[in-house]
Amino acid sequence: MAFVPARSISLLTDFGDRDHYVGVMKGVILRLCPGPWIADITHNVEPFRIDQAAYLLSQAWPWFPAGTVHLAVVDPGVGSERRPIAALAGGHAFVLPDNGLLALLNLDAPVVREIRDPSLLLHPVSRTFHGRDIFAPTAAALARGFPFEQIGPEISDWVRRDSSANGVLHIDRFGNVVTGLRVEASAPAIRIGSMVISRSVETYAQAAPGELVLIAGSGGFWEVSEREASAAARIGCQVGDAIKILAPAGKS
Amino acid sequence: MAFVPARSISLLTDFGDRDHYVGVMKGVILRLCPGPWIADITHNVEPFRIDQAAYLLSQAWPWFPAGTVHLAVVDPGVGSERRPIAALAGGHAFVLPDNGLLALLNLDAPVVREIRDPSLLLHPVSRTFHGRDIFAPTAAALARGFPFEQIGPEISDWVRRDSSANGVLHIDRFGNVVTGLRVEASAPAIRIGSMVISRSVETYAQAAPGELVLIAGSGGFWEVSEREASAAARIGCQVGDAIKILAPAGKS
Amino acid sequence: MAFVPARSISLLTDFGDRDHYVGVMKGVILRLCPGPWIADITHNVEPFRIDQAAYLLSQAWPWFPAGTVHLAVVDPGVGSERRPIAALAGGHAFVLPDNGLLALLNLDAPVVREIRDPSLLLHPVSRTFHGRDIFAPTAAALARGFPFEQIGPEISDWVRRDSSANGVLHIDRFGNVVTGLRVEASAPAIRIGSMVISRSVETYAQAAPGELVLIAGSGGFWEVSEREASAAARIGCQVGDAIKILAPAGKS
Repeated sequence: MAFVPARSISLLTDFGDRDHYVGVMKGVILRLCPGPWIADITHNVEPFRIDQAAYLLSQAWPWFPAGTVHLAVVDPGVGSERRPIAALAGGHAFVLPDNGLLALLNLDAPVVREIRDPSLLLHPVSRTFHGRDIFAPTAAALARGFPFEQIGPEISDWVRRDSSANGVLHIDRFGNVVTGLRVEASAPAIRIGSMVISRSVETYAQAAPGELVLIAGSGGFWEVSEREASAAARIGCQVGDAIKILAPAGKS
Repeated sequence: MAFVPARSISLLTDFGDRDHYVGVMKGVILRLCPGPWIADITHNVEPFRIDQAAYLLSQAWPWFPAGTVHLAVVDPGVGSERRPIAALAGGHAFVLPDNGLLALLNLDAPVVREIRDPSLLLHPVSRTFHGRDIFAPTAAALARGFPFEQIGPEISDWVRRDSSANGVLHIDRFGNVVTGLRVEASAPAIRIGSMVISRSVETYAQAAPGELVLIAGSGGFWEVSEREASAAARIGCQVGDAIKILAPAGKS
Repeated sequence: MAFVPARSISLLTDFGDRDHYVGVMKGVILRLCPGPWIADITHNVEPFRIDQAAYLLSQAWPWFPAGTVHLAVVDPGVGSERRPIAALAGGHAFVLPDNGLLALLNLDAPVVREIRDPSLLLHPVSRTFHGRDIFAPTAAALARGFPFEQIGPEISDWVRRDSSANGVLHIDRFGNVVTGLRVEASAPAIRIGSMVISRSVETYAQAAPGELVLIAGSGGFWEVSEREASAAARIGCQVGDAIKILAPAGKS
């Protein structure tokens, strides 16, 4: 399977936006792949939340052109024995640590390789910043046409990890609470903390002021929303909180 | 009137920086207009604050090259009947929801069209994310040379909306309080909350430590500032708070 | 000494991410240097903290390609008599206010010029936004090939400023506390506030949960870290706090 690069690179990390880390990765990319089209997805994944990173990346990557390299660094195990890997699926490439993030993306038949070719790495490889020394240079190499087959050996034992469907996966800027419940049927009734949410609507405009409603998010998950206000603030919930299903969803 | 694209696109939204929304819009743009020059203005407009969005965009857009497409998505009415529109003025294009934002920009003789051509949209169009399905693809199309005349019918009844001159329009990173009062004369004396501000200076360096002063902001509005400190924190004000004029401005 | 531009520009400011300031600077750059590769380092330097800006820029700039223009605007003296300057060192260009930031970068034999050529400036030059009117246009000019020698007279009396080695220089997204202590020997024992830190480790994984440890940061400074938690929150420290050395570092 060949990868035809579009010279576009997406970036997703938990590095935040007040450090030099993301800028350094972009500098490395500019040095190794002149003229790339870099698009930030977000750098505000909560530190070390691999499940949230997977949710955000899985919502974003299909909208990029085929040939994009998606560089995702949420890496609590940096400096330990976890492997750096790259994967191909659907004409896109993914460069990331082997910590379960890849499995949570639910890609269709990914081909996965361990990043091993020493010519790809910045030497000496530090123990604390593989985003700079391993992942960014590999992404830049793939974006400029370095053959995927040469980055290292194909592996099949990359880390598998299940997502928790019944938890708060993400809270967006508007306070919408993204659940792990997929929109496959009519809305369930659920409880988060002390709040019960049982009414579903099709648009925000249909909700009454102050009412918590379920709405089918554009990403395919049920979200709890409040019209022009923060549902998360009203509920008082955080990423990772449990969701209890009170009444099962019917057919839609 | 023809629009000659410079392949540059500015982005302004209230989507924040911890979600995938902006990244998705950039992915759509990269897919539909290879090689664009995308510049974020900000994504931290307070949710649904159309007046603040208009202030920030009106301060930023004239500094971009002619031929830039300005993509502005602050859209409390998404999923309702509000129309998606695009406008041309001064050699720049604007793509945005028809909710009053355009009027607040005070453009010179804009030509406005409703976005209707089905070939511009990503199908199926969702009910909750028109930034992805309508606005980003239309901006990408204009940036790559799609004729403005073909996006849909010209309209003249786009939503008008007045700005509130006597309120806090914006609070910047340094805690400078941007008022809706234009710098057309010498400084007025004003009150915000319990604080009276009556002295104006020409540079921050002329203010005494701890003193609240009026200063002519680079955007043409009077701003309340404190030297090397946050005026907003000292006053305890927020965007939207009322400003009372105590003494009228004289001639400058 | 000639500067060969790579058309890449890095940006570092204390302008934050909820204003139009950075977008305006990017608009100016796009207008004056079509087709640049702009990479943000960060815009969240704490307001007016020149030492923190120098730390972040010094960590980032060497990773960019030679020929990059680094545009750094942390400028408490805007509107006063401080000079705008540009410097060449190591094949990179730096455009910034003359307030000590350049000295803190510890560049190797920089050649420094005052920005004077009127053709470089946006007129009228405002008193409050030299990032837009002086620094961004100069950076754009250098990136498109304007000769460094023509921006203004060479100067040698640019502002010198010492860094405080024994203070908290920066706190990163993960709560790692970056000290001003260089990694030149084995770790010292130190005290910040009421906390004593004396054990050093090589990777985060070697720290026990809840333990504060010293780790050699990728930037060459000792950092105080806590495994998968915020050391800064546990210590309760802020940028600028004092660090006391309890036991001197040995040879490594």
